Amino acid sequence: MRVLGVDPGLTRCGVGVVEGVAGRPLTMLGVGVVRTPADAELGLRLVAVEQGIERWLDEYRPEFVAVERVFSQHNVRTVMGTAQASAVAMLCAARRGIPVALHTPSEVKAAVTGSGRADKAQVGAMVTRLLRLDAPPRPADAADALALAICHIWRAPAQNRLQQAVALHAAKAPTTSKGRTA
Amino acid sequence: MRVLGVDPGLTRCGVGVVEGVAGRPLTMLGVGVVRTPADAELGLRLVAVEQGIERWLDEYRPEFVAVERVFSQHNVRTVMGTAQASAVAMLCAARRGIPVALHTPSEVKAAVTGSGRADKAQVGAMVTRLLRLDAPPRPADAADALALAICHIWRAPAQNRLQQAVALHAAKAPTTSKGRTA
Repeated sequence: MRVLGVDPGLTRCGVGVVEGVAGRPLTMLGVGVVRTPADAELGLRLVAVEQGIERWLDEYRPEFVAVERVFSQHNVRTVMGTAQASAVAMLCAARRGIPVALHTPSEVKAAVTGSGRADKAQVGAMVTRLLRLDAPPRPADAADALALAICHIWRAPAQNRLQQAVALHAAKAPTTSKGRTA
Repeated sequence: MRVLGVDPGLTRCGVGVVEGVAGRPLTMLGVGVVRTPADAELGLRLVAVEQGIERWLDEYRPEFVAVERVFSQHNVRTVMGTAQASAVAMLCAARRGIPVALHTPSEVKAAVTGSGRADKAQVGAMVTRLLRLDAPPRPADAADALALAICHIWRAPAQNRLQQAVALHAAKAPTTSKGRTA
C-alpha cells in the first residue's frame, strides 16, 4: 500500500510518501515540503499548493492520501490557511479517484509514539526509527506528513480497500447540481 | 465590469454574475447555487464545487471574482466547510488569472444597504431593487452572491484594474517550490 501523507499549510505543506503494509517494515519513498510565499495573493498560493500536490501525485501515484484533520479551535489566522490548503490537497486526490482519509493530530501521534500527546521531537524520532532513516526529516511538517502516512497504513486494511472502491466509484459519478434563473 | 460573486458553502454555494460600473444601473446576468450532497465524502464534495464554479466561469467569463471572507469565529462545524469551499472558488479563479477579492459580510451589507448590520431580508430587498428584479433571489445564498458582486463593482475602479494586472502577471509565474530527499 502506497500512501501520500499531507500536513496541510499555506507557507509549508509537508508531504511524504510511505509504502508498506501493517506488521511489516515500512519504506519511505519521498519526503518534502510544498512552499508558497507568504506575501503572495491567497488565490495564487492555493494554485501553487495545487501544482505542488499534483507533482507529488504524478510522481508517486499513491493509492491513498492521508490529510491531517483541521480543527477551528486553533489559532484564528493559521487555521483558515490550513483549512484552505487541506481543501486543495483533498480536491487533487478526489479528482483522481484516490481515497482521502483524515486523521487527527492525536490519532497520528498515538499511532507512531503510543501517546496522543507526544511532542514534535518524539514524533520525529519515531518516524526516523520506523522508516530506518539516518536523521529526522526537516522541517517538522515533513516528518508529520510521514507520520500521517504511517498512521494510515496501520489502519484496518479491509477498511482501506472498501474506501478505495467507494472513492473510485464516486469519482466516476459527479455529485453536483446547479439551479439558475435569468 | 463583469463580476462573479461567490457566497461559499459546501451544501449550498451561492453564485451570481453582475455586470456594470459604479454610478450606473447594474445588470444581473445569472444567479444560482452550486449544491453538493451532505452525505458525500468531503473530497468529492470539493470536486463537485470545483466543477460547479468552473461551469460558471466558462459560461460567464467574469473579469473579477468576489468571495466572502470567512472568519473562524463562526460555528465550528460550518466554518471549515465554508473555508474549504472558498478555497476551491479562489483556486478556480486564480488558475485562470482572474483576480480574486475578498469582502467581509459587513462590508457587503454596508455596500448594498448602508448598514453593516443589515439582516438577510434587507440585503435581499436591496439586491432586488438594485438589479431591478421581480422578486428577491432564493435561496439567501444566491442573493448574497449577487450582493458580493455589487459590492465589488462599487469599489474604486482604478484599484480593480491594478489588481487585475497583478493577477494576470502572477498567474504566468508560478510561485511554488519543492524540496525532497530519498
